[in-house]
Amino acid sequence: MAKKIGVVLAGCGVYDGSEIHEAVITMLALDRAGAEIICMAPDMEQMHVVNHLTGEPAEGETRNVLVEAARIARGNIKNIADIKADQLDGLFMPGGFGVAKNLCDFAVKGPDCTVHPEVSRLVKEIVAAKKPLAAVCIAPALISKVLGDQKPKLTIGNDADVAGGMEKMGAQHVQCPVNEFVVDEENKIISTPAYMLAGRISEAAEGIEKTVQALLKMA
Amino acid sequence: MAKKIGVVLAGCGVYDGSEIHEAVITMLALDRAGAEIICMAPDMEQMHVVNHLTGEPAEGETRNVLVEAARIARGNIKNIADIKADQLDGLFMPGGFGVAKNLCDFAVKGPDCTVHPEVSRLVKEIVAAKKPLAAVCIAPALISKVLGDQKPKLTIGNDADVAGGMEKMGAQHVQCPVNEFVVDEENKIISTPAYMLAGRISEAAEGIEKTVQALLKMA
Repeated sequence: MAKKIGVVLAGCGVYDGSEIHEAVITMLALDRAGAEIICMAPDMEQMHVVNHLTGEPAEGETRNVLVEAARIARGNIKNIADIKADQLDGLFMPGGFGVAKNLCDFAVKGPDCTVHPEVSRLVKEIVAAKKPLAAVCIAPALISKVLGDQKPKLTIGNDADVAGGMEKMGAQHVQCPVNEFVVDEENKIISTPAYMLAGRISEAAEGIEKTVQALLKMA
Repeated sequence: MAKKIGVVLAGCGVYDGSEIHEAVITMLALDRAGAEIICMAPDMEQMHVVNHLTGEPAEGETRNVLVEAARIARGNIKNIADIKADQLDGLFMPGGFGVAKNLCDFAVKGPDCTVHPEVSRLVKEIVAAKKPLAAVCIAPALISKVLGDQKPKLTIGNDADVAGGMEKMGAQHVQCPVNEFVVDEENKIISTPAYMLAGRISEAAEGIEKTVQALLKMA
Protein backbone atom coordinates (compact mmCIF):
# COMPACT_ATOMS: atom_id res chain seq x y z
CA MET A 1 0.00 0.00 0.00
CA ALA A 2 1.25 3.45 -0.94
CA LYS A 3 2.08 5.69 1.99
CA LYS A 4 -0.28 8.66 2.16
CA ILE A 5 1.63 11.89 2.68
CA GLY A 6 -0.14 15.19 3.28
CA VAL A 7 1.38 18.28 1.65
CA VAL A 8 0.29 21.50 3.37
CA LEU A 9 0.20 24.46 0.98
CA ALA A 10 -0.06 28.17 1.78
CA GLY A 11 -1.02 29.74 -1.55
CA CYS A 12 0.98 29.90 -4.79
CA GLY A 13 4.14 32.00 -4.97
CA VAL A 14 7.20 32.58 -2.80
CA TYR A 15 6.29 36.09 -1.56
CA ASP A 16 2.67 35.53 -0.50
CA GLY A 17 2.08 31.77 -0.68
CA SER A 18 3.92 28.47 -0.95
CA GLU A 19 7.33 28.50 -2.59
CA ILE A 20 6.39 26.89 -5.92
CA HIS A 21 9.70 25.13 -6.61
CA GLU A 22 9.79 23.63 -3.11
CA ALA A 23 6.21 22.39 -3.42
CA VAL A 24 6.70 20.84 -6.87
CA ILE A 25 10.05 19.25 -5.98
CA THR A 26 8.36 17.73 -2.91
CA MET A 27 5.50 16.33 -4.97
CA LEU A 28 7.83 14.91 -7.63
CA ALA A 29 10.05 13.21 -5.04
CA LEU A 30 7.03 11.77 -3.20
CA ASP A 31 5.49 10.47 -6.42
CA ARG A 32 8.76 8.95 -7.62
CA ALA A 33 9.06 7.14 -4.28
CA GLY A 34 5.56 5.68 -4.78
CA ALA A 35 3.79 7.74 -2.11
CA GLU A 36 0.24 9.01 -2.47
CA ILE A 37 0.11 12.81 -2.26
CA ILE A 38 -2.76 14.56 -0.48
CA CYS A 39 -2.51 18.31 -0.99
CA MET A 40 -4.35 20.56 1.44
CA ALA A 41 -4.60 24.21 2.47
CA PRO A 42 -6.76 26.35 4.73
CA ASP A 43 -9.82 28.07 3.24
CA MET A 44 -8.96 31.69 4.17
CA GLU A 45 -7.97 34.99 2.62
CA GLN A 46 -4.24 35.56 2.10
CA MET A 47 -2.58 38.17 4.32
CA HIS A 48 -1.97 40.09 1.10
CA VAL A 49 -1.13 39.65 -2.57
CA VAL A 50 2.41 40.44 -3.73
CA ASN A 51 3.19 41.35 -7.33
CA HIS A 52 6.07 38.92 -7.94
CA LEU A 53 7.46 41.02 -10.79
CA THR A 54 7.97 44.15 -8.66
CA GLY A 55 8.07 42.54 -5.21
CA GLU A 56 5.52 45.10 -4.00
CA PRO A 57 2.11 44.38 -2.42
CA ALA A 58 -0.75 44.61 -4.93
CA GLU A 59 -3.05 47.12 -3.25
CA GLY A 60 -6.73 46.26 -3.21
CA GLU A 61 -6.26 42.69 -4.45
CA THR A 62 -7.41 39.69 -2.40
CA ARG A 63 -6.86 35.99 -3.01
CA ASN A 64 -7.88 32.83 -1.15
CA VAL A 65 -5.15 30.49 0.10
CA LEU A 66 -6.98 27.26 -0.83
CA VAL A 67 -7.97 28.55 -4.28
CA GLU A 68 -4.42 29.70 -5.11
CA ALA A 69 -2.80 26.56 -3.67
CA ALA A 70 -5.07 24.60 -6.04
CA ARG A 71 -2.88 25.93 -8.88
CA ILE A 72 0.09 23.95 -7.57
CA ALA A 73 -2.14 20.91 -6.92
CA ARG A 74 -3.80 21.08 -10.39
CA GLY A 75 -7.16 21.28 -8.61
CA ASN A 76 -6.60 18.10 -6.58
CA ILE A 77 -6.62 19.63 -3.11
CA LYS A 78 -8.57 19.41 0.17
CA ASN A 79 -9.56 21.91 2.82
CA ILE A 80 -7.16 21.14 5.68
CA ALA A 81 -10.12 21.34 8.09
CA ASP A 82 -11.38 18.07 6.54
CA ILE A 83 -8.14 16.13 7.08
CA LYS A 84 -7.35 14.15 10.24
CA ALA A 85 -4.01 12.56 11.11
CA ASP A 86 -5.48 9.04 10.87
CA GLN A 87 -5.92 9.59 7.10
CA LEU A 88 -2.17 10.16 6.69
CA ASP A 89 1.14 8.34 7.17
CA GLY A 90 3.11 11.58 7.34
CA LEU A 91 2.88 15.33 6.76
CA PHE A 92 5.09 17.64 4.67
CA MET A 93 5.13 21.44 4.78
CA PRO A 94 7.03 23.25 1.99
CA GLY A 95 8.10 26.84 2.65
CA GLY A 96 7.46 30.25 1.13
CA PHE A 97 6.37 33.47 2.85
CA GLY A 98 2.77 32.21 2.82
CA VAL A 99 3.69 29.85 5.66
CA ALA A 100 4.69 32.85 7.77
CA LYS A 101 1.94 35.17 6.46
CA ASN A 102 -1.09 32.90 6.01
CA LEU A 103 -0.62 29.62 7.92
CA CYS A 104 0.70 31.75 10.79
CA ASP A 105 1.71 35.40 11.18
CA PHE A 106 5.36 34.88 12.14
CA ALA A 107 6.41 37.30 9.33
CA VAL A 108 4.59 40.11 11.14
CA LYS A 109 4.65 39.15 14.82
CA GLY A 110 7.73 36.94 15.18
CA PRO A 111 7.67 34.70 18.26
CA ASP A 112 4.31 36.21 19.35
CA CYS A 113 2.66 34.78 16.26
CA THR A 114 -0.62 32.86 16.07
CA VAL A 115 -1.00 29.71 13.95
CA HIS A 116 -4.12 28.93 11.91
CA PRO A 117 -6.15 26.62 14.18
CA GLU A 118 -6.59 23.79 11.66
CA VAL A 119 -2.89 23.81 10.74
CA SER A 120 -1.97 23.76 14.42
CA ARG A 121 -4.44 20.94 15.10
CA LEU A 122 -3.18 18.70 12.30
CA VAL A 123 0.50 19.24 13.17
CA LYS A 124 -0.22 18.33 16.81
CA GLU A 125 -2.27 15.28 15.79
CA ILE A 126 0.51 13.99 13.50
CA VAL A 127 3.21 14.34 16.15
CA ALA A 128 0.95 12.84 18.86
CA ALA A 129 0.32 9.87 16.56
CA LYS A 130 4.12 9.39 16.21
CA LYS A 131 3.87 9.98 12.47
CA PRO A 132 6.69 11.87 10.76
CA LEU A 133 6.53 15.55 9.90
CA ALA A 134 8.79 17.43 7.49
CA ALA A 135 9.20 21.22 7.44
CA VAL A 136 11.07 23.08 4.69
CA CYS A 137 12.53 26.59 4.46
CA ILE A 138 10.62 28.91 6.86
CA ALA A 139 8.07 26.24 7.89
CA PRO A 140 10.13 25.23 10.97
CA ALA A 141 9.24 28.64 12.46
CA LEU A 142 5.56 27.63 12.44
CA ILE A 143 6.44 24.21 13.88
CA SER A 144 8.39 25.93 16.67
CA LYS A 145 5.24 27.81 17.70
CA VAL A 146 2.96 24.77 17.60
CA LEU A 147 5.36 22.32 19.28
CA GLY A 148 7.57 24.63 21.37
CA ASP A 149 6.68 22.73 24.56
CA GLN A 150 8.28 19.61 23.07
CA LYS A 151 11.55 21.45 22.38
CA PRO A 152 11.72 20.35 18.72
CA LYS A 153 15.14 20.25 17.06
CA LEU A 154 14.83 22.16 13.79
CA THR A 155 16.77 24.07 11.14
CA ILE A 156 16.07 27.03 8.90
CA GLY A 157 19.71 27.11 7.79
CA ASN A 158 21.75 29.81 9.52
CA ASP A 159 19.65 33.01 9.74
CA ALA A 160 20.36 34.29 13.25
CA ASP A 161 17.17 36.38 13.56
CA VAL A 162 14.79 33.61 12.55
CA ALA A 163 16.73 31.02 14.57
CA GLY A 164 16.58 33.31 17.61
CA GLY A 165 12.81 33.68 17.18
CA MET A 166 12.42 29.92 16.98
CA GLU A 167 14.41 29.43 20.16
CA LYS A 168 12.20 31.98 21.95
CA MET A 169 9.22 29.78 21.02
CA GLY A 170 10.92 26.73 22.53
CA ALA A 171 12.76 25.11 19.61
CA GLN A 172 16.41 24.06 19.52
CA HIS A 173 17.86 25.50 16.32
CA VAL A 174 20.59 23.54 14.55
CA GLN A 175 22.61 25.11 11.72
CA CYS A 176 22.44 23.09 8.51
CA PRO A 177 23.79 23.50 4.95
CA VAL A 178 21.35 23.74 2.02
CA ASN A 179 21.98 20.21 0.76
CA GLU A 180 21.42 18.50 4.11
CA PHE A 181 18.63 18.09 6.65
CA VAL A 182 18.18 17.86 10.41
CA VAL A 183 16.30 15.04 12.16
CA ASP A 184 14.57 15.31 15.52
CA GLU A 185 14.38 11.57 16.23
CA GLU A 186 12.23 11.93 19.33
CA ASN A 187 9.51 14.03 17.73
CA LYS A 188 10.02 12.50 14.26
CA ILE A 189 10.51 15.88 12.61
CA ILE A 190 12.79 16.48 9.62
CA SER A 191 13.74 19.94 8.37
CA THR A 192 15.88 21.39 5.57
CA PRO A 193 16.74 25.01 4.68
CA ALA A 194 15.89 24.95 0.93
CA TYR A 195 15.39 28.57 -0.25
CA MET A 196 16.36 29.97 3.15
CA LEU A 197 19.85 29.30 1.74
CA ALA A 198 19.55 28.02 -1.84
CA GLY A 199 20.92 30.20 -4.61
CA ARG A 200 19.52 27.96 -7.33
CA ILE A 201 16.74 25.42 -7.73
CA SER A 202 19.07 22.37 -7.79
CA GLU A 203 20.41 23.29 -4.34
CA ALA A 204 16.90 23.45 -2.89
CA ALA A 205 16.06 20.15 -4.59
CA GLU A 206 18.98 18.24 -3.08
CA GLY A 207 17.92 18.93 0.52
CA ILE A 208 14.21 18.45 -0.19
CA GLU A 209 14.75 15.12 -1.95
CA LYS A 210 16.79 13.85 1.02
CA THR A 211 14.06 15.10 3.36
CA VAL A 212 11.37 13.22 1.42
CA GLN A 213 13.44 10.03 1.61
CA ALA A 214 13.96 10.48 5.36
CA LEU A 215 10.25 11.13 5.92
CA LEU A 216 9.19 8.05 3.97
CA LYS A 217 11.65 5.87 5.90
CA MET A 218 10.00 6.99 9.14
CA ALA A 219 6.42 6.68 7.82
CA MET B 1 30.37 28.72 -20.50
CA ALA B 2 26.87 27.78 -19.39
CA LYS B 3 24.35 27.41 -22.19
CA LYS B 4 21.64 30.07 -21.97
CA ILE B 5 18.19 28.57 -22.35
CA GLY B 6 15.08 30.72 -22.55
CA VAL B 7 11.96 29.41 -20.80
CA VAL B 8 8.77 30.96 -22.18
CA LEU B 9 6.02 31.17 -19.55
CA ALA B 10 2.31 31.90 -20.03
CA GLY B 11 1.11 32.74 -16.51
CA CYS B 12 0.96 30.51 -13.42
CA GLY B 13 -1.46 27.60 -13.29
CA VAL B 14 -2.53 24.81 -15.63
CA TYR B 15 -6.00 26.17 -16.51
CA ASP B 16 -5.12 29.79 -17.35
CA GLY B 17 -1.32 29.96 -17.43
CA SER B 18 1.77 27.76 -17.57
CA GLU B 19 1.47 24.25 -16.16
CA ILE B 20 3.41 24.74 -12.93
CA HIS B 21 4.84 21.21 -12.63
CA GLU B 22 6.08 21.25 -16.23
CA ALA B 23 7.72 24.65 -15.77
CA VAL B 24 9.46 23.72 -12.49
CA ILE B 25 10.59 20.30 -13.74
CA THR B 26 12.07 22.06 -16.79
CA MET B 27 13.92 24.59 -14.65
CA LEU B 28 15.27 21.91 -12.30
CA ALA B 29 16.50 19.74 -15.17
CA LEU B 30 18.14 22.73 -16.89
CA ASP B 31 19.83 23.86 -13.67
CA ARG B 32 21.06 20.37 -12.86
CA ALA B 33 22.58 20.15 -16.34
CA GLY B 34 24.45 23.42 -15.72
CA ALA B 35 22.42 25.59 -18.08
CA GLU B 36 21.58 29.22 -17.36
CA ILE B 37 17.80 29.77 -17.27
CA ILE B 38 16.27 32.93 -18.69
CA CYS B 39 12.55 33.05 -17.89
CA MET B 40 10.36 35.30 -19.98
CA ALA B 41 6.70 36.02 -20.70
CA PRO B 42 4.65 38.58 -22.62
CA ASP B 43 3.38 41.66 -20.77
CA MET B 44 -0.35 41.27 -21.47
CA GLU B 45 -3.64 40.52 -19.75
CA GLN B 46 -4.56 36.84 -19.43
CA MET B 47 -7.49 35.65 -21.57
CA HIS B 48 -9.24 35.01 -18.24
CA VAL B 49 -8.64 33.82 -14.68
CA VAL B 50 -9.72 30.30 -13.73
CA ASN B 51 -10.45 29.32 -10.12
CA HIS B 52 -8.32 26.16 -9.93
CA LEU B 53 -10.36 24.78 -7.02
CA THR B 54 -13.66 24.79 -8.93
CA GLY B 55 -12.33 24.79 -12.50
CA GLU B 56 -14.67 27.69 -13.31
CA PRO B 57 -13.69 31.11 -14.70
CA ALA B 58 -13.42 33.77 -11.99
CA GLU B 59 -15.77 36.45 -13.25
CA GLY B 60 -14.49 40.02 -13.12
CA GLU B 61 -10.93 39.06 -12.20
CA THR B 62 -7.99 40.07 -14.39
CA ARG B 63 -4.33 39.08 -14.14
CA ASN B 64 -1.22 39.90 -16.16
CA VAL B 65 0.71 37.04 -17.80
CA LEU B 66 4.18 38.44 -16.99
CA VAL B 67 3.26 39.28 -13.38
CA GLU B 68 1.78 35.82 -12.72
CA ALA B 69 4.61 34.01 -14.52
CA ALA B 70 6.98 35.85 -12.16
CA ARG B 71 5.63 33.58 -9.39
CA ILE B 72 7.16 30.55 -11.08
CA ALA B 73 10.37 32.48 -11.80
CA ARG B 74 10.66 33.87 -8.22
CA GLY B 75 10.69 37.36 -9.73
CA ASN B 76 13.62 36.64 -12.05
CA ILE B 77 11.87 37.09 -15.38
CA LYS B 78 12.06 39.27 -18.51
CA ASN B 79 9.50 40.72 -20.87
CA ILE B 80 9.78 38.49 -23.96
CA ALA B 81 9.75 41.65 -26.11
CA ASP B 82 13.24 42.42 -24.75
CA ILE B 83 14.77 39.05 -25.68
CA LYS B 84 16.42 38.31 -29.02
CA ALA B 85 17.55 34.91 -30.27
CA ASP B 86 21.21 35.96 -30.20
CA GLN B 87 21.01 36.15 -26.39
CA LEU B 88 20.04 32.46 -26.20
CA ASP B 89 21.44 29.04 -27.07
CA GLY B 90 17.99 27.42 -27.10
CA LEU B 91 14.35 28.01 -26.22
CA PHE B 92 11.97 25.89 -24.12
CA MET B 93 8.19 26.27 -23.92
CA PRO B 94 6.38 24.36 -21.13
CA GLY B 95 2.65 23.72 -21.55
CA GLY B 96 -0.55 24.61 -19.74
CA PHE B 97 -3.73 26.16 -21.12
CA GLY B 98 -2.07 29.59 -20.92
CA VAL B 99 -0.04 28.66 -24.01
CA ALA B 100 -3.30 28.15 -25.94
CA LYS B 101 -5.19 31.03 -24.25
CA ASN B 102 -2.56 33.74 -23.78
CA LEU B 103 0.49 33.08 -25.97
CA CYS B 104 -1.97 32.22 -28.74
CA ASP B 105 -5.74 31.64 -28.91
CA PHE B 106 -5.71 28.05 -30.16
CA ALA B 107 -8.00 27.04 -27.25
CA VAL B 108 -10.71 29.30 -28.69
CA LYS B 109 -10.03 29.42 -32.44
CA GLY B 110 -8.20 26.17 -33.18
CA PRO B 111 -6.21 26.23 -36.44
CA ASP B 112 -7.41 29.79 -37.16
CA CYS B 113 -5.60 31.05 -34.07
CA THR B 114 -3.31 34.07 -33.80
CA VAL B 115 0.02 33.94 -31.93
CA HIS B 116 1.29 36.80 -29.73
CA PRO B 117 3.63 38.74 -32.05
CA GLU B 118 6.65 38.67 -29.72
CA VAL B 119 6.31 34.94 -29.08
CA SER B 120 5.98 34.32 -32.80
CA ARG B 121 9.00 36.54 -33.53
CA LEU B 122 11.28 34.80 -31.01
CA VAL B 123 10.28 31.28 -32.10
CA LYS B 124 10.99 32.21 -35.75
CA GLU B 125 14.32 33.82 -34.82
CA ILE B 126 15.45 30.75 -32.86
CA VAL B 127 14.61 28.33 -35.67
CA ALA B 128 16.15 30.63 -38.30
CA ALA B 129 19.34 30.76 -36.20
CA LYS B 130 19.44 26.91 -36.17
CA LYS B 131 19.13 26.92 -32.38
CA PRO B 132 17.06 24.18 -30.74
CA LEU B 133 13.49 24.68 -29.56
CA ALA B 134 11.54 22.43 -27.18
CA ALA B 135 7.75 22.43 -26.87
CA VAL B 136 5.90 20.55 -24.12
CA CYS B 137 2.26 19.46 -23.71
CA ILE B 138 0.01 21.78 -25.78
CA ALA B 139 2.88 24.11 -26.82
CA PRO B 140 3.43 22.20 -30.11
CA ALA B 141 0.04 23.58 -31.25
CA LEU B 142 1.45 27.10 -31.06
CA ILE B 143 4.63 25.99 -32.83
CA SER B 144 2.51 24.47 -35.61
CA LYS B 145 0.93 27.87 -36.27
CA VAL B 146 4.20 29.80 -36.24
CA LEU B 147 6.24 27.29 -38.28
CA GLY B 148 3.56 25.52 -40.32
CA ASP B 149 5.30 26.44 -43.60
CA GLN B 150 8.33 24.42 -42.48
CA LYS B 151 6.19 21.31 -41.86
CA PRO B 152 7.53 20.73 -38.33
CA LYS B 153 7.36 17.19 -36.95
CA LEU B 154 5.73 17.46 -33.51
CA THR B 155 3.82 15.51 -30.87
CA ILE B 156 1.11 16.34 -28.36
CA GLY B 157 0.70 12.64 -27.48
CA ASN B 158 -2.31 11.05 -29.15
CA ASP B 159 -5.25 13.51 -28.95
CA ALA B 160 -6.87 13.23 -32.41
CA ASP B 161 -8.60 16.63 -32.30
CA VAL B 162 -5.51 18.61 -31.35
CA ALA B 163 -3.31 16.57 -33.71
CA GLY B 164 -5.79 17.21 -36.53
CA GLY B 165 -5.70 20.94 -35.81
CA MET B 166 -1.92 20.92 -35.89
CA GLU B 167 -1.88 19.14 -39.24
CA LYS B 168 -4.29 21.75 -40.65
CA MET B 169 -1.71 24.38 -39.66
CA GLY B 170 1.01 22.50 -41.56
CA ALA B 171 2.63 20.27 -38.91
CA GLN B 172 3.24 16.53 -39.17
CA HIS B 173 1.91 15.00 -35.98
CA VAL B 174 3.66 11.92 -34.56
CA GLN B 175 2.09 9.88 -31.76
CA CYS B 176 4.34 9.60 -28.72
CA PRO B 177 4.06 8.01 -25.25
CA VAL B 178 4.30 10.23 -22.16
CA ASN B 179 7.81 9.13 -21.22
CA GLU B 180 9.33 9.78 -24.65
CA PHE B 181 9.86 12.70 -27.02
CA VAL B 182 9.87 13.41 -30.73
CA VAL B 183 12.74 15.11 -32.55
CA ASP B 184 12.43 17.12 -35.75
CA GLU B 185 16.10 16.98 -36.76
CA GLU B 186 15.76 19.39 -39.66
CA ASN B 187 14.10 22.19 -37.71
CA LYS B 188 15.81 21.26 -34.41
CA ILE B 189 12.52 20.98 -32.53
CA ILE B 190 11.88 18.55 -29.68
CA SER B 191 8.43 17.87 -28.23
CA THR B 192 6.97 15.67 -25.48
CA PRO B 193 3.34 15.13 -24.36
CA ALA B 194 3.77 15.68 -20.57
CA TYR B 195 0.34 16.45 -19.06
CA MET B 196 -1.42 15.92 -22.42
CA LEU B 197 -1.02 12.27 -21.31
CA ALA B 198 0.52 12.15 -17.83
CA GLY B 199 -1.58 10.80 -14.99
CA ARG B 200 1.01 11.73 -12.39
CA ILE B 201 3.87 14.19 -12.01
CA SER B 202 6.63 11.56 -12.35
CA GLU B 203 5.32 10.60 -15.79
CA ALA B 204 5.44 14.21 -16.96
CA ALA B 205 8.93 14.55 -15.49
CA GLU B 206 10.40 11.59 -17.36
CA GLY B 207 9.55 13.00 -20.79
CA ILE B 208 10.50 16.56 -19.87
CA GLU B 209 13.87 15.54 -18.44
CA LYS B 210 14.67 13.62 -21.63
CA THR B 211 13.57 16.65 -23.67
CA VAL B 212 15.88 18.95 -21.69
CA GLN B 213 18.80 16.59 -22.28
CA ALA B 214 18.02 16.41 -26.01
CA LEU B 215 17.75 20.21 -26.24
CA LEU B 216 21.07 20.76 -24.47
CA LYS B 217 22.83 18.26 -26.74
CA MET B 218 21.66 20.27 -29.76
CA ALA B 219 22.45 23.67 -28.22
